[in-house]
Amino acid sequence: MKIALLQMSISDKKQKNIEKAISFLKQAKENKADMAILPEMFCCPYAAQNFPIYAEEQGGMVWQALSKTAKECNMYLVGGSMPEREKEAIYNTCYVFDRKGKQIAKHRKMHLFDIEVTGGQCFKESDTLTAGNQVTIFDTEFGKIGVCICYDIRFPELARLMVLEGANVMIVPAAFNMTTGPAHWEISFRTRALDNQIYTIGVAPARNENAAYVSYGNSIVASPWGEILVRLDEKEAIAFYEIDLDKINKVRQELPLLKHRRTDIYNLSLKIKK
Amino acid sequence: MKIALLQMSISDKKQKNIEKAISFLKQAKENKADMAILPEMFCCPYAAQNFPIYAEEQGGMVWQALSKTAKECNMYLVGGSMPEREKEAIYNTCYVFDRKGKQIAKHRKMHLFDIEVTGGQCFKESDTLTAGNQVTIFDTEFGKIGVCICYDIRFPELARLMVLEGANVMIVPAAFNMTTGPAHWEISFRTRALDNQIYTIGVAPARNENAAYVSYGNSIVASPWGEILVRLDEKEAIAFYEIDLDKINKVRQELPLLKHRRTDIYNLSLKIKK
Repeated sequence: MKIALLQMSISDKKQKNIEKAISFLKQAKENKADMAILPEMFCCPYAAQNFPIYAEEQGGMVWQALSKTAKECNMYLVGGSMPEREKEAIYNTCYVFDRKGKQIAKHRKMHLFDIEVTGGQCFKESDTLTAGNQVTIFDTEFGKIGVCICYDIRFPELARLMVLEGANVMIVPAAFNMTTGPAHWEISFRTRALDNQIYTIGVAPARNENAAYVSYGNSIVASPWGEILVRLDEKEAIAFYEIDLDKINKVRQELPLLKHRRTDIYNLSLKIKK
Repeated sequence: MKIALLQMSISDKKQKNIEKAISFLKQAKENKADMAILPEMFCCPYAAQNFPIYAEEQGGMVWQALSKTAKECNMYLVGGSMPEREKEAIYNTCYVFDRKGKQIAKHRKMHLFDIEVTGGQCFKESDTLTAGNQVTIFDTEFGKIGVCICYDIRFPELARLMVLEGANVMIVPAAFNMTTGPAHWEISFRTRALDNQIYTIGVAPARNENAAYVSYGNSIVASPWGEILVRLDEKEAIAFYEIDLDKINKVRQELPLLKHRRTDIYNLSLKIKK
């Protein structure tokens, strides 16, 4: 499974962002990617007041562009995220399309990002966003893949639930910042990969020092052994990586963490079923 | 709360190990430690065939020595671990004593270490050991502290359950090896600390290249922000650290991970109550 991590820079012009995304997706196809991944809020500068302005309903203009491009490129597309409007509510939503351009999954960010670090980053997504309520997994010819968004990765329960439902890869469109990025970006991807013996993939917007919210960048792939396989810097770029899914079984045989869970002692379960 | 991490080297002479432990505990007291922590299997070279030979019942010779020294030093003592015999079973057990030498907790390693890394470390604890069935927390004037042993740290469920029961510090007598140590020791302690916004403390035996099982050493303290605060190298040594428990509330206010858990969506719970 060849993946493309599209670390694009994001402007305040929605149309320009869509064009950039399409151009990156076509480059991914030219490089024979099976799946391309866009960053969180790839068509809307990350700011709570922007979400209502840039929001679209499912099936709107941005959705159409993604679906069409996935089909044209005959490639899976994990559509980063964008503000999705449904009635009065706005969600931070990732649409996933198959090679025919059909939507096969939709994840609404489940854990909203409300932080206030003294002398560091402050942000309050819940000012304008509503949280999703579902664990999201989709099926491909390469196996099951989980998808969540940015702050969702902070919660070991979510990654574990995906893996217990069969996900071998976790994809995370994300935009850590200049406080949490240097402190926690790498360890978050390495840890979820290591604990669950899966691949984790994070795709971030390129850094723009002039933005209200400065993305850390550093799009990343971590292995089931907790190693870093791919890591971009802060600049706009595409990274390609051919994922060796056989490695997962090898690691799980050598260090059988999932088998060694004491499910007779503790229980982790979903309260709301998909 | 001043802690002492006693990274002692371990010989095959039980009596010599006990004398070393007592001498290290007295040094901890001289340095005004409130709590001293011994490494995993501090009085028994780590090998499956040794556990039955070195095993003692609770209240046996080693237990007596620890209790007496805790009382003499007026210091909490997390007694690393030792093989504990109860009827036909042998456990990898950590006894915890208060300042009066009274046993206030006992943890039996809950996840047994059975791994087989190609070209790396192989070990099978379950050949001679039985697993414990309890999450272990004890109370001090500094608050609640969780304790588990080595491979137990691999399981995010256990650390989370301790924290949900109020633990602010997790102490882990441990002996990672030369395969898993360089790959996973640091990230394991940083991650459990970061995800749960607690202090984690790992105390390992000093490295002995001639042992059947070579300990990685590198006794460690990680902060609620995921930073490394203390890290020894492989040599025999004592590390002291004054833990700032106020830091926990500061981190939890700035980045409210525990508050943001979606307990309406997922549930992690104990099946067997203490």
